[in-house]
Amino acid sequence: MTQQDFTIYAGLYKDALLLDVIPFWECYSIDKKNGGYFTCLDREGTIYDTDKFIWLQARQAWVFSMLYNELEPRKDWLETAKLGIEFLIKYGMAKSGDFYFAVNAVGEPLVKPYSIFSDCFAAMAFGQYAKAENDDHFLNLAYKIYQNILSKQQNPKGIFNKKTNIRPLKDFALPMILSNLVLEIEVVLSQGEIDQMLDTCIEEVMGTFLDEETGLIHEYTSPEGKFVNSFEGRLINPGHGLEAMRFMLDIGNRRNDRALVEKAIKVILSILDFSWDQEYGGIYYFMDVKGHPTQQLEWDQKLWWVHLEALVALAKAFSLTNDPKIGAWYQKVHHYTWKHFPDPDFGEWFGYLNRQGQPHLTLKGGKWKGCFHVPRALFQCWQTFEKLANQL
Amino acid sequence: MTQQDFTIYAGLYKDALLLDVIPFWECYSIDKKNGGYFTCLDREGTIYDTDKFIWLQARQAWVFSMLYNELEPRKDWLETAKLGIEFLIKYGMAKSGDFYFAVNAVGEPLVKPYSIFSDCFAAMAFGQYAKAENDDHFLNLAYKIYQNILSKQQNPKGIFNKKTNIRPLKDFALPMILSNLVLEIEVVLSQGEIDQMLDTCIEEVMGTFLDEETGLIHEYTSPEGKFVNSFEGRLINPGHGLEAMRFMLDIGNRRNDRALVEKAIKVILSILDFSWDQEYGGIYYFMDVKGHPTQQLEWDQKLWWVHLEALVALAKAFSLTNDPKIGAWYQKVHHYTWKHFPDPDFGEWFGYLNRQGQPHLTLKGGKWKGCFHVPRALFQCWQTFEKLANQL
Repeated sequence: MTQQDFTIYAGLYKDALLLDVIPFWECYSIDKKNGGYFTCLDREGTIYDTDKFIWLQARQAWVFSMLYNELEPRKDWLETAKLGIEFLIKYGMAKSGDFYFAVNAVGEPLVKPYSIFSDCFAAMAFGQYAKAENDDHFLNLAYKIYQNILSKQQNPKGIFNKKTNIRPLKDFALPMILSNLVLEIEVVLSQGEIDQMLDTCIEEVMGTFLDEETGLIHEYTSPEGKFVNSFEGRLINPGHGLEAMRFMLDIGNRRNDRALVEKAIKVILSILDFSWDQEYGGIYYFMDVKGHPTQQLEWDQKLWWVHLEALVALAKAFSLTNDPKIGAWYQKVHHYTWKHFPDPDFGEWFGYLNRQGQPHLTLKGGKWKGCFHVPRALFQCWQTFEKLANQL
Repeated sequence: MTQQDFTIYAGLYKDALLLDVIPFWECYSIDKKNGGYFTCLDREGTIYDTDKFIWLQARQAWVFSMLYNELEPRKDWLETAKLGIEFLIKYGMAKSGDFYFAVNAVGEPLVKPYSIFSDCFAAMAFGQYAKAENDDHFLNLAYKIYQNILSKQQNPKGIFNKKTNIRPLKDFALPMILSNLVLEIEVVLSQGEIDQMLDTCIEEVMGTFLDEETGLIHEYTSPEGKFVNSFEGRLINPGHGLEAMRFMLDIGNRRNDRALVEKAIKVILSILDFSWDQEYGGIYYFMDVKGHPTQQLEWDQKLWWVHLEALVALAKAFSLTNDPKIGAWYQKVHHYTWKHFPDPDFGEWFGYLNRQGQPHLTLKGGKWKGCFHVPRALFQCWQTFEKLANQL
């Protein structure tokens, strides 16, 4: 990649974020009447369902708070963030202190708190919003939720856990999220708490879940970090692995831990080599490490967040190393992503492509896709390329 | 369809059942060491995972018992059935009387009893096996499980139910299964019990869940049988609807209820009109009744059981009416199904095709596909066409 590429990419990401994606959500998702956001938007932005999924409410509140904090203190962004924050405070939390999974348009709970990720994204949202409002109340709330998450770590699903103890497994998703969450709310934590959590996350992600032989991140291992030859034990979620690696890059960069950065970069390359679809391009959604059939029927689909996380990881990796192998992968993923995901007719990005690269669900938002991965990745890539462009 | 077609079809189904599908499972799935069956078989029949899903154990035991009862009392079929029945008795049932969802190869429980369908298929298996062995012990067991199912009807998921009571929904799957189960174990029930259950099932399936306006079966309605405008309320599962209609045909035929038969046939045609893929052929897996995006990422895939249930429903409907519209649909679905699902190289049938009709998972069995829908449908179509061929 040349200096000129950096400038072009920076502009591309900036424009997509500020002229397309953020306006799309501002225009179609705001629920002024009840508070919070509608996230079930069809291709044109029309609301096709009014249910509200708590983690998507939190993620959108986080995005607008983050833009306010990191980019420009625009009053309308703060107001949009506030709409979600107030909805979360009013309706998101159950009496137990856990967050519901879903509520209806007016905030009545529909799905009980079974997912610790609702809590994780609520903590992130309150953390960013506290910074925007400079208000300790929200910071304390974020801290309280964080403590609750830690207390549930050993059995995140609680009473909804269907597994017996015959084949105990460790789950990758939580340490991955925690490695990011801890930095999101660091102002409320002591240096000791931060360091200890980061040490644990690095150890889990790069020790327990990374298979040194293949260079791949497993979704589940035995409690001792050993391979388990079962559907879950064999499962590879390339997008998860790539997302975790860019958290590792952030931590490595922050700590000046060159070994961690280099290890994360090797893993990024291993994951991409393993999960790139040689026939149609793009990164598979799920794979079996031994090449057996997955239980996930959607395994060969190409998802927006997987490709965006790959771009963020590769852009950051390139900015830290100037490694031409990383540069080549960046451009390959860039080409595929920008060709297939942005919707040229109605704006924002498609979420779900079939293996051949055609959108098989044309929604802009639903139960899993909201205002989060697209703007977050656009922002991070923009910033990374802008720095590279200015490094002359 | 001509008389000659009937003869050809009867032979086709018979040969596929007896020369291909049953031998495949006999050859590859039997676990002589631990009892029960391996169902995770790859394209060639090689075992790629040894976990045992209780409902698939029960379904395979049912198939071999049924063949023994209905076709020919072959000792080896009875022994194969016995292998699954004994495994179920030893390892399938939790202390609560509910059936586990999954156990490992040697029978240790992996997944707690959260699905009432494990119980339903266990009851079916014990009922058929009791007939084969002419042994009241198994019949009593089937009856006991049936009573347990009825006692759980109002809250089948028990403690694993994640929903609040803000938006109560009725679930179509249970009355559908019960309308078949009750006939499977009828010898152990009084005429009053049978009639009452059939009346209730017909009322629920053809009253509550059938939308008279569209002629489609909904997966969920309000407790009063009204449409609910939510992801679940809008969900159409065409295969489920077609499977239920052929149960309704069986009941209508048995009861000489011509109105029920004709109503079921109208629904079959409505479902097929709604769910046939005009571009690539085949029946979609999931649809939204209003054309909105589904939550199911696999919505456009073509599944083996959906097409087989359609063929059974259409063959039965044709044999009851000689309606040329039904005949034309039969041939359309027949052509698609026989062209795409049977594996010409390694035998048995593919389970999962992408929208374009190519296998995107080449497994012969896994967590959901086992020795059940293929042999059951082949047997039923064979018998139906043989009767038609002999009707001269």
